[in-house]
Amino acid sequence: MSLAHSIGRDAGGDNRDSADVEAVMMAIGRRARAAAAALALAPADAKNHALRAAAAAMRAGAAGILAANAEDLAAARAKGQRDALVDRLVLDEKRLDGIAAGLEAIAELPDPVGQVMAAWTRPNGLRIERRRVPLGVIGIIYESRPNVTADAGGLCLKSGNAAILRGGSESFHSSRALVAALHEGLRAAGLTEDAVQLVPTRDRAAVGALLRMAEYVDVIVPRGGRSLIERVQAESRVPVFAHLDGVCHVYVDAAADPDAAEAIAVNAKMRRTSVCGAAETLLVDRSVAPVLLPRLAAALTQAGCALRGDAEARALVPAMDPATEADWSTEYLDAVLSVAVVDGVDGAIAHINRWGSHHTDSIVTADKAAAERFLTEVDSAIVLHNASTQFADGGEFGMGAEIGISTGRMHARGPVGAEQLTSFKYVVRGDGHIRP
Amino acid sequence: MSLAHSIGRDAGGDNRDSADVEAVMMAIGRRARAAAAALALAPADAKNHALRAAAAAMRAGAAGILAANAEDLAAARAKGQRDALVDRLVLDEKRLDGIAAGLEAIAELPDPVGQVMAAWTRPNGLRIERRRVPLGVIGIIYESRPNVTADAGGLCLKSGNAAILRGGSESFHSSRALVAALHEGLRAAGLTEDAVQLVPTRDRAAVGALLRMAEYVDVIVPRGGRSLIERVQAESRVPVFAHLDGVCHVYVDAAADPDAAEAIAVNAKMRRTSVCGAAETLLVDRSVAPVLLPRLAAALTQAGCALRGDAEARALVPAMDPATEADWSTEYLDAVLSVAVVDGVDGAIAHINRWGSHHTDSIVTADKAAAERFLTEVDSAIVLHNASTQFADGGEFGMGAEIGISTGRMHARGPVGAEQLTSFKYVVRGDGHIRP
Repeated sequence: MSLAHSIGRDAGGDNRDSADVEAVMMAIGRRARAAAAALALAPADAKNHALRAAAAAMRAGAAGILAANAEDLAAARAKGQRDALVDRLVLDEKRLDGIAAGLEAIAELPDPVGQVMAAWTRPNGLRIERRRVPLGVIGIIYESRPNVTADAGGLCLKSGNAAILRGGSESFHSSRALVAALHEGLRAAGLTEDAVQLVPTRDRAAVGALLRMAEYVDVIVPRGGRSLIERVQAESRVPVFAHLDGVCHVYVDAAADPDAAEAIAVNAKMRRTSVCGAAETLLVDRSVAPVLLPRLAAALTQAGCALRGDAEARALVPAMDPATEADWSTEYLDAVLSVAVVDGVDGAIAHINRWGSHHTDSIVTADKAAAERFLTEVDSAIVLHNASTQFADGGEFGMGAEIGISTGRMHARGPVGAEQLTSFKYVVRGDGHIRP
Repeated sequence: MSLAHSIGRDAGGDNRDSADVEAVMMAIGRRARAAAAALALAPADAKNHALRAAAAAMRAGAAGILAANAEDLAAARAKGQRDALVDRLVLDEKRLDGIAAGLEAIAELPDPVGQVMAAWTRPNGLRIERRRVPLGVIGIIYESRPNVTADAGGLCLKSGNAAILRGGSESFHSSRALVAALHEGLRAAGLTEDAVQLVPTRDRAAVGALLRMAEYVDVIVPRGGRSLIERVQAESRVPVFAHLDGVCHVYVDAAADPDAAEAIAVNAKMRRTSVCGAAETLLVDRSVAPVLLPRLAAALTQAGCALRGDAEARALVPAMDPATEADWSTEYLDAVLSVAVVDGVDGAIAHINRWGSHHTDSIVTADKAAAERFLTEVDSAIVLHNASTQFADGGEFGMGAEIGISTGRMHARGPVGAEQLTSFKYVVRGDGHIRP
């Protein structure tokens, strides 16, 4: 049985020949590489036309996409999947409209390709410019959020990159329907459908093959839980944008405005507990803890949050559960918050740099010097002063959309939007210059 | 026998316990991580003071450094090393002065750390800036060029990174003497000597350990031949700046000025044949090949270059040896040049993107439209118009110095100077902002 045939029939099993999977993936890689060469030169208008036409196709084809999604949902429920997973899978008219609107928003962004990032002239007259170019081929490996299919495909297209999408098997039909709409957009704009390819098998061997295709893939973006990220980082022969989860902190300084501290602490934790920018640890300066911590604890408890404190915090708020050392590096992604009393901004910086995940951390203070120290010395992708950690988001940063938030230090750090999916080249103009 | 002891005695052998090597490397990694945290906050003045004091120490201690170098040279000659390797090893007063001057030049560069790369305000009033920060810990693995010790150490220090240097075993004594001078500079500036650490063993297991220390090393920079680079790329669990060699091209277009074409072709190949920016292939447009190719071939032959042509080139210049397919992807690093006749700028772009190494390529033409197509469509780190490929160099680009030239597309591409050894963070300022 050919792989294509088995896929057409949605066999979905894991018993087919892994050499077949390898061959399918290599063919996808070759097509992606060829598509990337064409996309790198595609005019901004064509890419934007494709994005808008894809959005229109999603709206016009909503019934078919929702039917495909219903297939995925039925299978997930039949397998007894957790409600949280099923919830992430669900598409409805409103979510689908949001996905289409996201593509239209990406079309509105400035085109990063061809932008001159810097230009200078050397004493010998050579004129040098650094010009943005696409990265090439981007492999996205994600769990069962169908919207990633459109967001990632759209951002890659905008930035002139070919995308290879490997979505979660639970969202296979939904993703396939969304990719069909993206293909409709590409065709309408006269661009190759190979610009966005969905891996046509649920076989997990496809992920391994993708991670080894350094010849055809320039960067891998994993989106999902810790086990996925760790597998990708361990196995990949291709550079990875490390989208690790966020152990984010709010530090309430001695000079914090109490109202702002309360509002920010509650928002940072409770606005949405499942996002990577949600706070997981509250740090309070020792000098104000006796006054502020009971108030903050009451507000958080009132909002439905469970608290786990260190000894000092529990001495002030005895109702807290005790925190263990593991709590300081735990991303709860839930209505749970660890609480520690620290020795001023120094203590806060030391705690965060030791236990945090270099993602997003905030200081609440009216003391500008303390704020500057925190902003400079906390070694995280995003550091905030008097603002909630929940602003850690490409949309909130004005990037229009994001393919994820990178906690790595190389190439992209923080929200990864279209601009971060580019590389650059040096263009040098002379008048017959030879080097002495 | 402890490893430190064996090193102190310069046992240099490969028979010690690899667990010892692992432990030594982990200790180096921990010290580097701690040093990086301190260096990230070091003022520009302190770093520049250290660089200048190190240069002074090299000049004052020249006799000792040259004596250490003489030890390396004697050992290399006794082992019957090739002349080219011995030549790379040699230090003399003039080369040492050049190395010291390089550190002083790095001190003069603007400090990249803390630079605000971009700043904007969101509609909700959040003020966002993207600020340069060091990468962290950089591992440099290099062959027997002692100058890399100072260049790499100096660039890492300038950019606020801790460096772990693993030089070629043939240059061990020279590197140790140069690092001692760097340490003298660091002490004079009140900075930790752990900012620049030299791996104290010649055991090759140390390289393997360095490549696996993802917890302590943020990026690996290999400097050396293809086999070193390939080993590093295959084994590393740490991101690598791929400094692959250069298969560079000069394309002489139909509209080329003949004098410029001759001067550029000869300079690109023959100025120095051993550098990565040396041209390895000459491409000539079919329409002018009958006139220009004999002239270019004569000038190159006159300059001492051997030519290997395709059938069309040999039909015009029968004295050429025939080129085989392997020639199109060969970096000779010698006075040898492959020559092909191509079909205009399209043919040149296709040839370069297929056979080149995405390093540096040049077009010679008076036709601006042809030049723009070449500059846009050739997918290389550096593309030039009417200039020699030998300008592929951080110094020539105005970067002051380079740690290498990257042919990868991620993070750094082209010459890697102090600025390319940085990451960034987002600093966000609010007034009690919570996310709706």
